[in-house]
Amino acid sequence: MIPAMSDLSQRLMDGDRRALARAITLVERADPAGWEVVRETYPNTGKAQLVGVTGPPGAGKSTLLGALATHWRAQDDTVGILSIDPSSPFTHGALLGDRIRLTDHFLDRGVFIRSMANRGALGGLSEAALQAALLMDAAGRDHVLIETVGVGQAEVDIINHADTIVLVLIPGSGDSIQALKAGVMEIPDIIVVNKADHPMAQTMIREVKSVLSLGHSRDLDWMPPIVPTKAVDGTGIPELVQQLDKHAAHLRDTGQLEERRLRNLRKEVLAIATLRLRAELERQLEDDPQLAGLLEQVGARTLDPASAATELLAQRTTA
Amino acid sequence: MIPAMSDLSQRLMDGDRRALARAITLVERADPAGWEVVRETYPNTGKAQLVGVTGPPGAGKSTLLGALATHWRAQDDTVGILSIDPSSPFTHGALLGDRIRLTDHFLDRGVFIRSMANRGALGGLSEAALQAALLMDAAGRDHVLIETVGVGQAEVDIINHADTIVLVLIPGSGDSIQALKAGVMEIPDIIVVNKADHPMAQTMIREVKSVLSLGHSRDLDWMPPIVPTKAVDGTGIPELVQQLDKHAAHLRDTGQLEERRLRNLRKEVLAIATLRLRAELERQLEDDPQLAGLLEQVGARTLDPASAATELLAQRTTA
Repeated sequence: MIPAMSDLSQRLMDGDRRALARAITLVERADPAGWEVVRETYPNTGKAQLVGVTGPPGAGKSTLLGALATHWRAQDDTVGILSIDPSSPFTHGALLGDRIRLTDHFLDRGVFIRSMANRGALGGLSEAALQAALLMDAAGRDHVLIETVGVGQAEVDIINHADTIVLVLIPGSGDSIQALKAGVMEIPDIIVVNKADHPMAQTMIREVKSVLSLGHSRDLDWMPPIVPTKAVDGTGIPELVQQLDKHAAHLRDTGQLEERRLRNLRKEVLAIATLRLRAELERQLEDDPQLAGLLEQVGARTLDPASAATELLAQRTTA
Repeated sequence: MIPAMSDLSQRLMDGDRRALARAITLVERADPAGWEVVRETYPNTGKAQLVGVTGPPGAGKSTLLGALATHWRAQDDTVGILSIDPSSPFTHGALLGDRIRLTDHFLDRGVFIRSMANRGALGGLSEAALQAALLMDAAGRDHVLIETVGVGQAEVDIINHADTIVLVLIPGSGDSIQALKAGVMEIPDIIVVNKADHPMAQTMIREVKSVLSLGHSRDLDWMPPIVPTKAVDGTGIPELVQQLDKHAAHLRDTGQLEERRLRNLRKEVLAIATLRLRAELERQLEDDPQLAGLLEQVGARTLDPASAATELLAQRTTA
């Protein structure tokens, strides 16, 4: 007997935008009702084209996402955009300007845009982002774009939920080129050089080519293409879409699509379980004076951090 | 009754370099004997000046560390340098060239240099790095420098072990400036503009000043100074040391030193405990066919990741 699906899940799968927005808010708050919607709609996922877009701030990622959305809407495809704000605790709304560039699509029901900054009750932005992406996928969006800023490990964890990873650079992205060269940043599947009308654009394209020739690529059968764009007027967008489709076909044909998704889902299960254990530990540290006393000893240099961790694990109560 | 200290711990605290090297190797391998040395020598920590140095690859961080070491050695202070290699799994030794710039000091017993890339058995580079830094501190090093590459969350976690954080930029660090401006990267305590003889250095200094005027600083009573350097010939190093000492005094005078250290140690205890729980989960996932079956269901889209995590936590055996 299949249990009846909740009304929210049903509406989400019928493509109701408000249901989708509501469900994402629930997972962002780590509300059990949100996990429930993901659970119910999960069998309907795995159909969307999942694209991760990353790069330094100011590279024009949001403009590029807007241009991609325009392109796909022209062929009547639906789009979901998940924009991950910096997880930095010390500034808010600094990137709001970027969001404004997406307002062209605010009245188009075929484009669903959501910004996410909250780490959720469990403290995992990456986990909340995956849940949101799954919901967009379940809601029948043909293309789901996940946008992150920066090149750190946290961003990599988020972007890894995507099937295809696009790195957006601009003339002047010296640090990113150095990071690619040194192997600190992984070579993505596609590299966009935006603001390609800039006088230094050709220099940047040459630098990217020289980095690619070093061959750090994770997929030996795929040579990451370099796509020059001018996102503000749509130049290069059809070429980018062509490369996205080519990469999607490559992943399917080589069996890597299933492989990548399985690997990421495995990591995700472990990450969610670990976050829950950690949240439980934090709660006990706050509630139990004896456990809190361990931290005082660490501060007084009478108990080292690793021994305190051992004590903490031994003394906690497991549910 | 105070238990007798192990021979390794005793030799480490007596300043024996080989004992220090041995102990760090043990913690890097997550060998229980390594944790034991940290436990025994921990009461002797908290005396070193802990400086974290971060910035994009190619900014000259290693050269700068070498110049700082030279400066401190001239006044007979001892130095420990912990260089964190990229945690990237797909490339190895790409940064070896940087290490070579530190070879001037390889024969000086007053400078202890250690490179770390291994995430350790528990999977936490940040945790292994803290243990190594504590060992250098316990070994009586007057200054302990922790070097990381990049600006992501993983690097931030490592760098947060330090009392004072230095960001090294060069002319051309456009992406880092954008990241500071957008609030993606936290404003450090001191900003070095290296390669200050470059024609574009003044432009970079102006850009840094304009970012600092935005006031994202985490410490309202400290205006991060900008120090131009030319690390290859030591230009600006005395000024940098002066700022490091000024910041150390500021932290002491305002009571922030204890506060920062307590906060970081608390995070560390939690992180170590969480890593152990995670390692235990991973082990069970590999050993128990029933738990492994959960992942298969996730891949087949019949069980969502969060529900699989719930099952995993319910079915695992807790020690």
